[in-house]
Amino acid sequence: MPPQEPSPYGARLAKLRERIAEERLEAFLATSLPNVHYLTGFSGSAGVLLVTLGDSLLFTDPRYDLQAHEQVRESRVVITAGDALTAAAKRWNRSRLLRLGFESGAVSFQTHRGLRKLLPKKRLIPTAGWVETFRIEKDEGEIEQIRRAVAVASRAFSETLPLVRPGIREIEVAAEIEYRMRRYGAAQPSFETIVAFGERTALPHARAGARPLRTGECVLMDLGAILDGYVSDMTRTVFLGRPSRKASRMYQAVWEAQKEAEETVRAGVECATVDRAARRVLDRYGYGRYFTHSTGHGVGREIHELPRIAKKQHAVLPERAVITVEPGVYLPGFGGVRIEDVVVVRKTGAEILTQTPKDLTVL
Amino acid sequence: MPPQEPSPYGARLAKLRERIAEERLEAFLATSLPNVHYLTGFSGSAGVLLVTLGDSLLFTDPRYDLQAHEQVRESRVVITAGDALTAAAKRWNRSRLLRLGFESGAVSFQTHRGLRKLLPKKRLIPTAGWVETFRIEKDEGEIEQIRRAVAVASRAFSETLPLVRPGIREIEVAAEIEYRMRRYGAAQPSFETIVAFGERTALPHARAGARPLRTGECVLMDLGAILDGYVSDMTRTVFLGRPSRKASRMYQAVWEAQKEAEETVRAGVECATVDRAARRVLDRYGYGRYFTHSTGHGVGREIHELPRIAKKQHAVLPERAVITVEPGVYLPGFGGVRIEDVVVVRKTGAEILTQTPKDLTVL
Repeated sequence: MPPQEPSPYGARLAKLRERIAEERLEAFLATSLPNVHYLTGFSGSAGVLLVTLGDSLLFTDPRYDLQAHEQVRESRVVITAGDALTAAAKRWNRSRLLRLGFESGAVSFQTHRGLRKLLPKKRLIPTAGWVETFRIEKDEGEIEQIRRAVAVASRAFSETLPLVRPGIREIEVAAEIEYRMRRYGAAQPSFETIVAFGERTALPHARAGARPLRTGECVLMDLGAILDGYVSDMTRTVFLGRPSRKASRMYQAVWEAQKEAEETVRAGVECATVDRAARRVLDRYGYGRYFTHSTGHGVGREIHELPRIAKKQHAVLPERAVITVEPGVYLPGFGGVRIEDVVVVRKTGAEILTQTPKDLTVL
Repeated sequence: MPPQEPSPYGARLAKLRERIAEERLEAFLATSLPNVHYLTGFSGSAGVLLVTLGDSLLFTDPRYDLQAHEQVRESRVVITAGDALTAAAKRWNRSRLLRLGFESGAVSFQTHRGLRKLLPKKRLIPTAGWVETFRIEKDEGEIEQIRRAVAVASRAFSETLPLVRPGIREIEVAAEIEYRMRRYGAAQPSFETIVAFGERTALPHARAGARPLRTGECVLMDLGAILDGYVSDMTRTVFLGRPSRKASRMYQAVWEAQKEAEETVRAGVECATVDRAARRVLDRYGYGRYFTHSTGHGVGREIHELPRIAKKQHAVLPERAVITVEPGVYLPGFGGVRIEDVVVVRKTGAEILTQTPKDLTVL
């Protein structure tokens, strides 16, 4: 019999229990679905998790009976006919324990009121960002999953490039990319694929529309796949026909900025340092004020996770954090360039997961 | 000069102001994004709306400067460098008015705390479901938009059917459907397209996987498109090769149940009546206990809106509500059938938006 892989869920629950004890609580109620997934392995669309120092109960509904029992080992599954949160609260009400931490950013004012009514004698203690902070540092299994999600997006991107010809519309390019990601196993795009042509590339969040591509224009594509619960995120900017000198210079600047920023990435470095490296290059080129967003963000179960790679972010990158590095320059009325990879923070530097070439590509 | 279409946003704000006055508030803060979209016409991914009896202010960030000014007429646009909600709160703090209603289901406990700190001398009054209730009754412009979203899904479905041949995988069918919806203008699917073959159709929320299709199996497809901010939702179950007698009988039962339920739909009828009509047919066939979900739900800006078409829902259907009618039967280990249309509630009956045929289809 082959050796069993150790499950990460036991370790994650243990870490959460340490925190529960440190903060002098007696239990923790996870209502943020990505956090419930992270702590249990369950991937359904509804469920809450009640963790005490000695037990862990996942409440979900009959739709997920089979799935939850298959996926979840380190927590006990409780199937409830009604609302999972109400069931969890009622169970907690029968306990002799008192101090329950809840996720104050993932419980609405209205839900909190409902909990108060269900638990008149208990103490509900707001917490913020506990599991989100645990999630910054990935384990190698998660990194593998992100690597696969990155590969699916890269493959879809490379296979779509030959279709980017004069006359194709932004929305058609987006459809071709998303179609391939889906066929290669993605449940969905990790966000609405951004495809912009020509002067529309100056809008960092352009929505793909009916605009046809003309020779001499640049093409910005920002895409990602959700594969088995983990996401990817990449951007490339290419040119249909030789770019102007101005456009080439912009490309060169962003490419250098992206490279410099990636070169600063390693465990122990402040997030702001990575951001500053990109900004310094763009400042040198005179594009500083056209770099209107931050340099990156964590990715994992969600497309925007901690940490933020931005100005004033003094948090230190831990080993195995997974982040994007994505500087961009946007000249209103002219166009924009953005280049984005997903990278893993390692002791000695960045491991770049995105394998798609970054040198100036002329179609 | 052609006459200008009257904008619906003024009327929606007027209705909200009536409610503000009735409830003796002085302003309303909309933080639910679909509600902000509904009240203003703005379609960006971040923004909050502060409505007083005499004014209406949409707060959003610089990314949406151009777009918000283009889309929004009946509210004033305020572009804020920082967080839009904080900016709205600070503006409210400078007002001499006191009583501000907020959406208690769309404000987290944590955010509410933040607002309390920003507004120490103001009264924050929880409200629930105000705008969601307004949204039940659509105007004809919204119905047109839903009709178009329905047409995009129906077209993608019909064009994909010829590809449903032996050996194709669930995920490939989903990719083909989503690809076509995207090309026909959808921003994204309104949910992860469900495609299930054979015994997997017995799972109402099956996730499309790598399973290849074999002759003699049934194929359940549940799909929808988001088009210009409005969604569609449809399900068809078809057969590759002649179905067994048992499967044909199931199909017949669900088809009849769906038809009977649609026939009860008209303005003034209780939601529970529509649900009961479907259940009665399935009971008669002996399938009652295998119909494990409710008969339908409202659709509009979101895939699940009010009203709920279910047991004990005594709310009355108003004219121009738009709902799904989707009974299903799921026999564990054997398979399932679901048939779903989107229909408009009219004075005299249901206007069925989904034009795709429902008679038993053998591929």
